[in-house]
Amino acid sequence: MNVLVWNENRHEKENQVVADIYPEGIHSAIADFLGEDHENVKTATLDEEEHGLTDEVLAETDVLVWWGHKAHDEVQDEIAEKVKQRVLEGMGLVVLHSAHFSKPFKKLMGTSCDLKWREADEKERIWVVDPSHPITEGIGEFIEIEKEEMYGEHFDIPTPEELIFVSWFEGGEVFRSGATFRRGRGKVFYFRPGHETYPTYYNKEVQTVIRNGVKWANNTETPTPVYGNAQPLEEISTKS
Amino acid sequence: MNVLVWNENRHEKENQVVADIYPEGIHSAIADFLGEDHENVKTATLDEEEHGLTDEVLAETDVLVWWGHKAHDEVQDEIAEKVKQRVLEGMGLVVLHSAHFSKPFKKLMGTSCDLKWREADEKERIWVVDPSHPITEGIGEFIEIEKEEMYGEHFDIPTPEELIFVSWFEGGEVFRSGATFRRGRGKVFYFRPGHETYPTYYNKEVQTVIRNGVKWANNTETPTPVYGNAQPLEEISTKS
Amino acid sequence: MNVLVWNENRHEKENQVVADIYPEGIHSAIADFLGEDHENVKTATLDEEEHGLTDEVLAETDVLVWWGHKAHDEVQDEIAEKVKQRVLEGMGLVVLHSAHFSKPFKKLMGTSCDLKWREADEKERIWVVDPSHPITEGIGEFIEIEKEEMYGEHFDIPTPEELIFVSWFEGGEVFRSGATFRRGRGKVFYFRPGHETYPTYYNKEVQTVIRNGVKWANNTETPTPVYGNAQPLEEISTKS
Amino acid sequence: MNVLVWNENRHEKENQVVADIYPEGIHSAIADFLGEDHENVKTATLDEEEHGLTDEVLAETDVLVWWGHKAHDEVQDEIAEKVKQRVLEGMGLVVLHSAHFSKPFKKLMGTSCDLKWREADEKERIWVVDPSHPITEGIGEFIEIEKEEMYGEHFDIPTPEELIFVSWFEGGEVFRSGATFRRGRGKVFYFRPGHETYPTYYNKEVQTVIRNGVKWANNTETPTPVYGNAQPLEEISTKS
Repeated sequence: MNVLVWNENRHEKENQVVADIYPEGIHSAIADFLGEDHENVKTATLDEEEHGLTDEVLAETDVLVWWGHKAHDEVQDEIAEKVKQRVLEGMGLVVLHSAHFSKPFKKLMGTSCDLKWREADEKERIWVVDPSHPITEGIGEFIEIEKEEMYGEHFDIPTPEELIFVSWFEGGEVFRSGATFRRGRGKVFYFRPGHETYPTYYNKEVQTVIRNGVKWANNTETPTPVYGNAQPLEEISTKS
Repeated sequence: MNVLVWNENRHEKENQVVADIYPEGIHSAIADFLGEDHENVKTATLDEEEHGLTDEVLAETDVLVWWGHKAHDEVQDEIAEKVKQRVLEGMGLVVLHSAHFSKPFKKLMGTSCDLKWREADEKERIWVVDPSHPITEGIGEFIEIEKEEMYGEHFDIPTPEELIFVSWFEGGEVFRSGATFRRGRGKVFYFRPGHETYPTYYNKEVQTVIRNGVKWANNTETPTPVYGNAQPLEEISTKS
Repeated sequence: MNVLVWNENRHEKENQVVADIYPEGIHSAIADFLGEDHENVKTATLDEEEHGLTDEVLAETDVLVWWGHKAHDEVQDEIAEKVKQRVLEGMGLVVLHSAHFSKPFKKLMGTSCDLKWREADEKERIWVVDPSHPITEGIGEFIEIEKEEMYGEHFDIPTPEELIFVSWFEGGEVFRSGATFRRGRGKVFYFRPGHETYPTYYNKEVQTVIRNGVKWANNTETPTPVYGNAQPLEEISTKS
Repeated sequence: MNVLVWNENRHEKENQVVADIYPEGIHSAIADFLGEDHENVKTATLDEEEHGLTDEVLAETDVLVWWGHKAHDEVQDEIAEKVKQRVLEGMGLVVLHSAHFSKPFKKLMGTSCDLKWREADEKERIWVVDPSHPITEGIGEFIEIEKEEMYGEHFDIPTPEELIFVSWFEGGEVFRSGATFRRGRGKVFYFRPGHETYPTYYNKEVQTVIRNGVKWANNTETPTPVYGNAQPLEEISTKS
């Protein structure tokens, strides 16, 4: 199983606070803990050629993790479209935090993916609302994060196929923080936490959820549908 | 369209605080505002014969609103079963607050319907998470209630077919406060607010949601499925 | 309530079989029976300026019905995008038959919307799988159409939020024929029947479903979410 | 992981056709192929003491497979209730064919679970409608069974949380043949095929689906919710 962690990697270069928290970049911090589960975990970033997402790389990726924020617009449309197509073919996609506004996620959702936000060092409690879901394995009833950016409803996504987490924020908002969507043969998991100015991706329970999400999103052996003009009726259903 | 508001009506008789808020009973307060929309709004209570839910009454009811709390066990099993059967036949059911533990709701859900709770005069904000749903017509982005009982996740219900509201509580919990379920030909709407010691059912926005819920739950003209041994194959599908 | 029926209107001009069935165009046939329910039913077609979908027209349309097939590519991207945005704002959208491949529907779904098909004069039975849904009011357990084009699974759409109809086809396929999706404040109903070479839109039960779908998709009074940077915390939730 | 295959085991004793197909009982045929995946696969049958479902047995079962038909009523209510409770606690449940009418399934669904049926040696095609789902791993676009009992819509279940398979039957019906439901911490998979007078459980693709279903339904490490009166507010969310 091949995992690829993609990161915009701009805040890390431009903001000392972020650089201090993630000296090797958010992608490396995520790849580190995913490496505990998988042998083949690679990273790619926006400023690489083709954003590190060549046809070859995408073709061999089973699950792609995506973090982006300030430079969504710099992702080439053609490459965002290729990512979407690979999801439809069966690649898993784990979308983190501000990547709610990333091009691949918006293309797959068909909505604005807009939301409320506030940077005010608020406490967040991420409650489990589906305790049967494998993405919740190994955590407790909720994950508490001392300080995070607030994201609030309405979150303009299609109705999630599975709603796993709902966040509570100190200032009075709620948010559907963990949600899954199926698109073609591919599975998509959105998970909210991870503002760049907080050390959220070092939180063990947040890591557990992302590790679970990557495992859940993997799909290699389900049937490949055939589309288009169906074969002539070889065996008409008759009963005689 | 015939609406019936059912209430346990015990707190009102036994607790002066409740009696002061709802001198005619919670059922009358609810029937009053539903009367703005419908000519035929009746009430029934636990201590009436057959709890006021005779076969005749149930047969002519299009939408039943249910409030109960401390005396769920006193509802006869046979009558709870009849209510369930009428829902499967097409009667709408609007389940309020502590009626999450009522017999008809538990029978229809198949789960424990358990939850967390706390009586601590907490502020509640009921956020709309589905702004396309007719049950949200006429309200704003959220309803704020100054003091209510807290209900918290995990709420042990089946995954709602439509999740419309999520509540935020001051003390740190969230709750899926407005949710719909389809059972047979019947539609069920659960709506959280309405602890007996607060004047919640006088809140105009809460009233609007309940009025919308009653309209949404009404169903009189959809097809009636036929079950059992299907007719012999009159016309086998042949193609020659 | 303003309804707009949009049609590509090309088969009618180029194929005598279609012209004989729908001499005034598919759009007029549909507008005729919708006119039994609504005073303001208009039509628009591909070859009109801006495809008849100017900003003014879209702004005043409550529900848009869409039929297209051979000329999806001729719909300007900019206009398809405007239709999508209006759905997110709250306009209802009823998507018929081969419009599964229309630009607005594909943009809203985020998938290929591909399927199997076969033109072989096959019998179709459209079974009701949700007999509680208002879109099924007034019809029986299934609608039988003597001859239609076959559409078969896999239909590459996101999991429908409500699955109302499943079709059986003589040649051995099934299809999720009636399905709803919520996008932003807008409601989308996809309904399968209506190949241009058959008189399907004169079928009274098919008409009933489309009439119900238009009523269901209308949404004018639900809350309008506010997005972006949330106001500073006016009232921090304190409890003292 | 402990798997238990429960079977009514009456047809096998009373009908020579069934005895010839399943000389050791349907439970043994199923346990055989599940044994390829799991070391601990046991069986239990109706006529054993407590139906072979003692508290100890249930407590150690991770996934229970259930087949029943003519003797649903002989299952003791108390034991059916225990099975339901174990599902809510996290035990997986795979419900096969005529077990749609079994007591545990009906209790968990809250509906009549009724359907149409016909015994007429009809061809069935079980189409995959969700090619992203792990339960479809290793099979093709559809499973064809030469002769089976027909089950037809309307199938009176709650809207499935995931709809994986839809069957086509020669005589003109469709059926939601593979569907999942979450109840408490437990996962339920209903799969249609397996009338006792046909050798359906020797079909390799049917076996693959049941094997996948058992793996999918297993859940041992997700959080255990705490219900009831929540702790006093230790840390009120304040922000000053």
